[in-house]
Parts: sequence; C-alpha cells; structure tokens
Amino acid sequence: MREVAQRAGVAISSVSRTLSGHPDVSDEMREQVMAAVAELGYKPDLLAQGLRSRASLSIGFVAGDISNPLFAQIARGAEVRLRENEYSMLLTNSLVEPDLDRQNIELLEQRRADGLIVLLVSETHEPTLDALANLTVPLVVVERDLPARIHASKVVSDHAAGVSAAVEHLLELGHRRIAIIGGPDVRPTRQRLESAERVLASHGLDPAALIARNGLFSEEHGAQATAEMLDLAEPPTALIAGSNQIMAGALQVISARGLELGRELSFIGYDDIAVAKVYRPPISVVERDLVAIGEVAAELLLTHVRDHDTAPREVVLPTRYIPRGSCGPAPSR
Amino acid sequence: MREVAQRAGVAISSVSRTLSGHPDVSDEMREQVMAAVAELGYKPDLLAQGLRSRASLSIGFVAGDISNPLFAQIARGAEVRLRENEYSMLLTNSLVEPDLDRQNIELLEQRRADGLIVLLVSETHEPTLDALANLTVPLVVVERDLPARIHASKVVSDHAAGVSAAVEHLLELGHRRIAIIGGPDVRPTRQRLESAERVLASHGLDPAALIARNGLFSEEHGAQATAEMLDLAEPPTALIAGSNQIMAGALQVISARGLELGRELSFIGYDDIAVAKVYRPPISVVERDLVAIGEVAAELLLTHVRDHDTAPREVVLPTRYIPRGSCGPAPSR
Repeated sequence: MREVAQRAGVAISSVSRTLSGHPDVSDEMREQVMAAVAELGYKPDLLAQGLRSRASLSIGFVAGDISNPLFAQIARGAEVRLRENEYSMLLTNSLVEPDLDRQNIELLEQRRADGLIVLLVSETHEPTLDALANLTVPLVVVERDLPARIHASKVVSDHAAGVSAAVEHLLELGHRRIAIIGGPDVRPTRQRLESAERVLASHGLDPAALIARNGLFSEEHGAQATAEMLDLAEPPTALIAGSNQIMAGALQVISARGLELGRELSFIGYDDIAVAKVYRPPISVVERDLVAIGEVAAELLLTHVRDHDTAPREVVLPTRYIPRGSCGPAPSR
Repeated sequence: MREVAQRAGVAISSVSRTLSGHPDVSDEMREQVMAAVAELGYKPDLLAQGLRSRASLSIGFVAGDISNPLFAQIARGAEVRLRENEYSMLLTNSLVEPDLDRQNIELLEQRRADGLIVLLVSETHEPTLDALANLTVPLVVVERDLPARIHASKVVSDHAAGVSAAVEHLLELGHRRIAIIGGPDVRPTRQRLESAERVLASHGLDPAALIARNGLFSEEHGAQATAEMLDLAEPPTALIAGSNQIMAGALQVISARGLELGRELSFIGYDDIAVAKVYRPPISVVERDLVAIGEVAAELLLTHVRDHDTAPREVVLPTRYIPRGSCGPAPSR
C-alpha cells in the first residue's frame, strides 16, 4: 500500500479508502490510485481485508430456482450493479424447496455476506422467516410480502396494473369465461388474482365467475391446470398463465390439442420470454423489466450496507400489458 | 469446537476435519458431529476458518452471460453439487465481453476462491488466457478448447454426434442446400460446422455447398443471418441454428414471413428450450444435458481442490438429435 501511495502521490489512507470502496473518494483520486495499482500489479488480498473490516465485499443472492429465466435475469441485473461497486455475488439455489431457502440464508450469513437479496420460495415458511428476522446484515426482499418483524427493503412489481389492462382487453373482446392459472400463494399470484377479480366487479360482473387454479410455478402445473380447464363442461374462452413456466406448460397442451390461439381460445402469458414472441400467433403478455428489478435490489442493498441506519424502502416497478395475436373476439356460442 | 466434540463424543481434531470438509471423514463421524453442531446451534465462522486454512469454501463460476438459459442450467447443476459438498458458488457475469472474463477471473482469485469453473466468451483473448495460465487454484473449462499452457480439466459436449445425426436426417429428406448459423469461433461452433461438412463429404457432396454464417450467440445475429440467407437467389431449404439465442432470432424472422416449417423450410435448433417444444410444428433440436455439464464440472473441480496433484481430465458428454415436425421433405423446384 505504501508503494501504491508513493506511486500515486497520495496518502496511504487515501489508498486504503479507495480500495475499501469508501464512498467519499473523488473520481480523480480513484483514477490515480487504480492507475498506480495497475502499474505495480498490486493485488489486495480481499479476504484478509474482509476479516479486518468485517466486510467480505460479497452479497448473497438466495434464489428459488436459477434455471428459471426470470431468476437468471434478476440475478444478472443485480450482479452487474454489484460488480460496478466492487462487490461479488454469492449465488445459491433453493430448488423450489422452502427449507433450502433457510439453509442458504444461514450459510450466507456464516460466509459473512455483507447483505442478502432474497427471492423466496414461500412467504410463510416459519424457519425461513426466523432466519431472516435474526439476520444481522441488511436484507432486500424481491417480489414477496413478509411479516413486519422482518426488517427489510423491498422491490416489487405493480402486477395489478398489467393484469388489469389484460383483463380489460379480454372483456372488450367479449370474453366472460376467463381463467387464470396461478402459482403458489405469494405476492405476485395474489395480486394478479385480486386485480382480475376487481376488474370483473368494476364491470358489474361476478368476480366468483373467474376460474382460478393455483399450484406450483411449474410446467407440470401449467399443463395439468390447462387440460383440466379445457375439459370443463363450460370451458373458459380466455386463459391467463401466471408465470413463464406455467405458460410453457399451458402451450404444450394447447399445441397438442391443435387449438388456434386468438380464434378458438384467447391466451395471455407472463413474462415476455422468447416463446411468446415467436409463437404463431404471437402471444399477449404482461411483462416487467426483470434486469431492472435486479439492479434496483442491488442498489437498495448497497445503500443499506454502507449505512446500516438507512430506513427500509419499498420500490414498486411497473408492469406492462402487450396485446398480440393470441387474443381475439370471444367465440359465439 | 470443544463443546461440539464433547457433545459428539469425538476428538476436537475430528470436529475440525469434519467442518473443514476433509475427505477422510466417515459418514458416521460426519453425522455425529453435525448432530452435535445442530443441537448446540454452533455457527462456525467460515471466513475466519478460510483465512487459517487458506480455503474459502467457495468456487468461482465465470459465465459469459447468466441471463442465457444455457448458462443458468449449467450454473444450477454446478451449484447443487457444490452445495452438497459444503461449497458456495461465487457467480460472475461477463456480459459477453472477453475482458470482463479476465477481470472476473482475477477478482475471484483475490477473493481466494478455492477453484474456478469458466465458460469463456473467447478462446483467444490473450489477457484472459494469461490470467488462467497464472492461476494458482484448480480450473475446470467448460465447452472451450484452450492452449496447452493452461493447466485445466475440461467438460465438453460431443457436438459432432448430434449435428451429424441432424444433417443425415436432412439429407435423407432430400435437402441439398443446407445452411448453418454459427456463433463465435469457439469449440461448439467449430465442431458443429466441421461435422456438418464431414457428413456432406461422406455422401459425395461438396462440403463447400454448406452455407455458413458465424457471428455472435445472439438473437440479432440469428435474425439477421436468417433474413440474409432467405433473401439469397437460391435460398437454403434447411436451416440449422447453432444456439438457443440464434434459434430465437431465426424464428422471429420465420414467423414474421409466415413461413411454414417442415413444408416451406426445414429447421433445426439448439438446445431443447421451451420454444422448441411448443412451436407449431414442434422444432427438431440437438440437445445436451446442461445440468449434467454443471454437475460434472463441479465434481471434477472438487477432486482437484481436494488434491491439487490429480492429473487433469477431459470429460465428453453426449448430445442427441431429436427429430420433430419442423423438418420435412425438401420442396421440389
């Protein structure tokens, strides 16, 4: 560090502040120091630094299933923002098992992660909630509603806006038997269902007429619920799939039965993944900016990491309904 | 540790060996120790342990683009296997920029990762190759051919098998103008192209007749190359897309032009993602077991981490061609 300070022509304390990511370092100072670091080939031993300062410069990301494109995009947004701020991301995968969320949270705390971003499998698994309530590092919760005893900032989507626009579109097209295939009982599933019911009620229709089937965020659930609904004596004329996996499962059944979307059945998916854009006809979706969710989660968390006294905040990001050819007039009976 | 040893009725050294992941610990010993750890609520401070033993119990994963489902599935396989062995995964994302690969490799080394798994953007970016050659921890390279100076185990796919079967199928269907849209000049792209040419030659056809367009692993390249090829005076009658992003881009153009796959154009994608299964008609693909690639990479790396003297190995995993409705007889002229 002394050599770096001499080469950069600055104080040793300035080198230390720059390398530890202290916020009060001017761009000019940072440039001088980093140029000297590069010239000298100096490699700070970050782990030893972490032990001294109690900062590991790593952030834990607890994801329910990283092979799901939704999580992967959120993780991508978070990782980029963290790296820009000299933090690494420790990624764990809970394989859709609530108790693995708890284990991963505890593991990341033992690894001295400086903070956690969590996208939980369940909102009600008590051991996980206890682990979060006992955390001594800052926490940002993504797309979930947790009890008040958990001190955390939140990044959520305004699912009501997108789903309301979608249901309004279906009503305009004359649909009255509308079905929604939901995931497990977590914030996005509840918000989608509640906003759909609210739109029906606002048009003087019976919210109970909405056909809803909740289950897992999985292709299997999407396929099974779709088959079951299409086999009803009075099948729905429009179907909303409440996740990209549910959409993929639903489309397998729809394709296998040779149903023409937009004519025989109207269909709306969630989120705007490749299959929605290239399906024939293209599929209407409710989308959200997944990378932005990750970026905002990382920014919020770093604010808390730098100052543990910052009050928790809730950031709500928009959703948007994109109408496409998969929605058409309700078939006449 | 003394309390844990007393409670478990074993020596303190046995507790230490169990908690540090030493290979010579019996299952019975591990169970006794972990039960005592659980009963006492003992939280080993893993970072401090790491500093003493020079082991951080973390593995770095350098991925070109974690929002690509291919990388996400490989990362998932690796993370599960690592966690089963008490290791965490530090995930970095190179945003398809070769120099970010280098930066991420150096960062992970500074973080004292016990080993690295890398899925590089480029096989020839010298600063990255230098960083890998200078690594002091074990390395596993996925789906890339690197110079011999880099001491590493490898996990690769036998792309030749899947693509050969695909091209044989197209020839049987009467196709003679076959196009392949490749990615950048890395092992999978080369293997796919070479094996396609070899099959043509083995049938007495001119390998130069293969229409090839290499570019990025991106939707944009897939769309642009597809449009360009379809606009040729003699367009291809069959198209092979050499990655899931290239497939998504190609399908956007095919859908926009209203081309009926299997009749007007035959089409083969790579890998077996959701869109291939639900497209109408379903799309023939060459698939590989991505989760297994991640699992094997993690297993190999842990072998090296536990014994730095283990000789490097190369594991080749199979690919498989799945014919579906997107391939049909060549249209007669």
